Amino acid sequence: MKKDMIYNFAAGPAMLPKEVLIQIQQDIQQYKISQTSILELGHRTIEFENILSNVKSQLKTLLSIPDTYEILFTQGGASLQFAMIPMNLMHNKQADYILTGLFSELAYEEAKLYGTIRVAGSTKDMQYCQIPTQQMLDISKDSSYVYMCWNNTVYGSMWHTVPDTKGIPIVADMTSCLLTQQIDVEKFGVIFAGTQKNLGIAGLCVVIIRKDLITSTRTSIPTLMRYDVLSKANSMYQTPPIFAIYVVDKVLEWMKQQGGIQVLENQNKEKSSLLYNYLDQSEFYETKINPTDRSIVNVTFYTPNEQLDAKFIQEAKQNGLFNVQGHKHVKGIRVSLYNAMPIEGVKALLSFMIAFESRYKSFV
Amino acid sequence: MKKDMIYNFAAGPAMLPKEVLIQIQQDIQQYKISQTSILELGHRTIEFENILSNVKSQLKTLLSIPDTYEILFTQGGASLQFAMIPMNLMHNKQADYILTGLFSELAYEEAKLYGTIRVAGSTKDMQYCQIPTQQMLDISKDSSYVYMCWNNTVYGSMWHTVPDTKGIPIVADMTSCLLTQQIDVEKFGVIFAGTQKNLGIAGLCVVIIRKDLITSTRTSIPTLMRYDVLSKANSMYQTPPIFAIYVVDKVLEWMKQQGGIQVLENQNKEKSSLLYNYLDQSEFYETKINPTDRSIVNVTFYTPNEQLDAKFIQEAKQNGLFNVQGHKHVKGIRVSLYNAMPIEGVKALLSFMIAFESRYKSFV
Repeated sequence: MKKDMIYNFAAGPAMLPKEVLIQIQQDIQQYKISQTSILELGHRTIEFENILSNVKSQLKTLLSIPDTYEILFTQGGASLQFAMIPMNLMHNKQADYILTGLFSELAYEEAKLYGTIRVAGSTKDMQYCQIPTQQMLDISKDSSYVYMCWNNTVYGSMWHTVPDTKGIPIVADMTSCLLTQQIDVEKFGVIFAGTQKNLGIAGLCVVIIRKDLITSTRTSIPTLMRYDVLSKANSMYQTPPIFAIYVVDKVLEWMKQQGGIQVLENQNKEKSSLLYNYLDQSEFYETKINPTDRSIVNVTFYTPNEQLDAKFIQEAKQNGLFNVQGHKHVKGIRVSLYNAMPIEGVKALLSFMIAFESRYKSFV
Repeated sequence: MKKDMIYNFAAGPAMLPKEVLIQIQQDIQQYKISQTSILELGHRTIEFENILSNVKSQLKTLLSIPDTYEILFTQGGASLQFAMIPMNLMHNKQADYILTGLFSELAYEEAKLYGTIRVAGSTKDMQYCQIPTQQMLDISKDSSYVYMCWNNTVYGSMWHTVPDTKGIPIVADMTSCLLTQQIDVEKFGVIFAGTQKNLGIAGLCVVIIRKDLITSTRTSIPTLMRYDVLSKANSMYQTPPIFAIYVVDKVLEWMKQQGGIQVLENQNKEKSSLLYNYLDQSEFYETKINPTDRSIVNVTFYTPNEQLDAKFIQEAKQNGLFNVQGHKHVKGIRVSLYNAMPIEGVKALLSFMIAFESRYKSFV
């Protein structure tokens, strides 16, 4: 099969724009004036300093991040933030967590190691088929922050409005959606995202944090896990994951060339609508997520039975539509339509879905 | 300047073998049968499972690691081990640290957050010009482990024999020397190494740990920092830094093709001896490290004064000898002769040193 006919719908690590892959390939052998490969570049070089400051300024521009926020880069992925958030922010030993899927559950379990964690809202008893409404939330004024996962990669649901938390800072895991849509950064205290979905490769996490939340009161925290230490050292307290940061730089440049976040958001809405519109009229496929809470980047659905799901996944792969299987927690089918997925890929998927339905609908 | 005439003596991130860079470049566009780029490869794929198991088996073979040891991969570099080691291993709240340079000092400072840390030996008052002798060590039988840094990248010193710790497990930071020489793994409880010097790129740490030291008694440790969790999850509790692990795989293959660790050790000894022999007979250059404690991978030396050091660094660069400046803690000159540095690079450096000496010796 020709590579040009393959579309990778993986939820992450995910596909990268082709233009970015070509650029990276060129830089492997020689990186501009440093005359060493990007894979050999030191972090105490002007070249890397430029990359790091370029990543920051591009993020600031693309997301309209105000000067009252700082951008930090850490290792350990989004998962290490599950510990760093409570360690750094839970000054009064209590925080509110809203449960909307697997990754908010994991963050909740981790936070319980460090203080009293309240469930301020949960749709678990509905199998996470929807996002809690404002009325379903119970925010405590004594909590240091309210934690949420903006886009639920496993279930395919997404917040579409920022809840009112009565002034308590919101901490949002945006691993699977940062830079796929406009967000109003000022409504959040902390936004973080592992980079292996829309921003680049695995091994790096971007943390956008309101500066007043960076404090240094708990010195028993491992040094590398302190936001104040990372901030003071410009995210270079230790050797940072240079190549992963460089890849983000290239991806952000690509996003800018595409026209910025609004253009990408429009594309992602167009891509996901193509699928949702078809799913909604189909009597063969079913999507379980409440229409107003659907993700624009992770679309989940089911055929009439598990055998057909398996057949769908298998035949999709034969047709160049890779990695469409659902997460093991929910099974079924999941396709991820991150920024790098061209609309041609979604159209190819849709054609396949239509053909698959007409081939198998009489058997059920 | 042609790239073939450039030698990168950086202490890390450091140069990679050219053959490895070429291999990586090929895999960026397409990775074998997965038909996706290595930069897009998921961790739950057969391709990545193969890479991970290949890295482990190659490490086991190259270093003769017994089955009583486990190999773990973590993010956060060697620096996060400074916290993970005491968190996981300091069961009786006391550990011994031997101070031989900057990185053992940093590990010592971090460990103090978690218990009582004894200094079991230190050559700080000698400006770390030597490694402590057995007689200089004072190991407590009540300590959970004895911590050491095998090769001191900043100062250019190295342990050449494993000290007798009366059965207390030794934890050794081998970030700058793992795979540059034969080691007797069984003499250590834990060996760890950030990968950005001899094994690959930054963003990954390899931990070789005796299985009986992996316990699960302290559940208040952040989940991602627990060796038992990493071990149970085969280092995939979270999305691992896939590309960084893949690079290690390629570097290990290269090491095998070179003839294995004994061949590389011989080369590293030959390379460093070329420089030490010249330095010892020179009245212009000075190296401060005790002859029996010298590193075979980081050679540090000084010209007669700081102005000439600066000139040396500048002229070296003009001659294609990159990144020879000493660490800011000790200044002077430092050249790193890791596995990927060919002997031609060292010979080019030596020629330059001879010419520089003859050019400037009459001025001092």
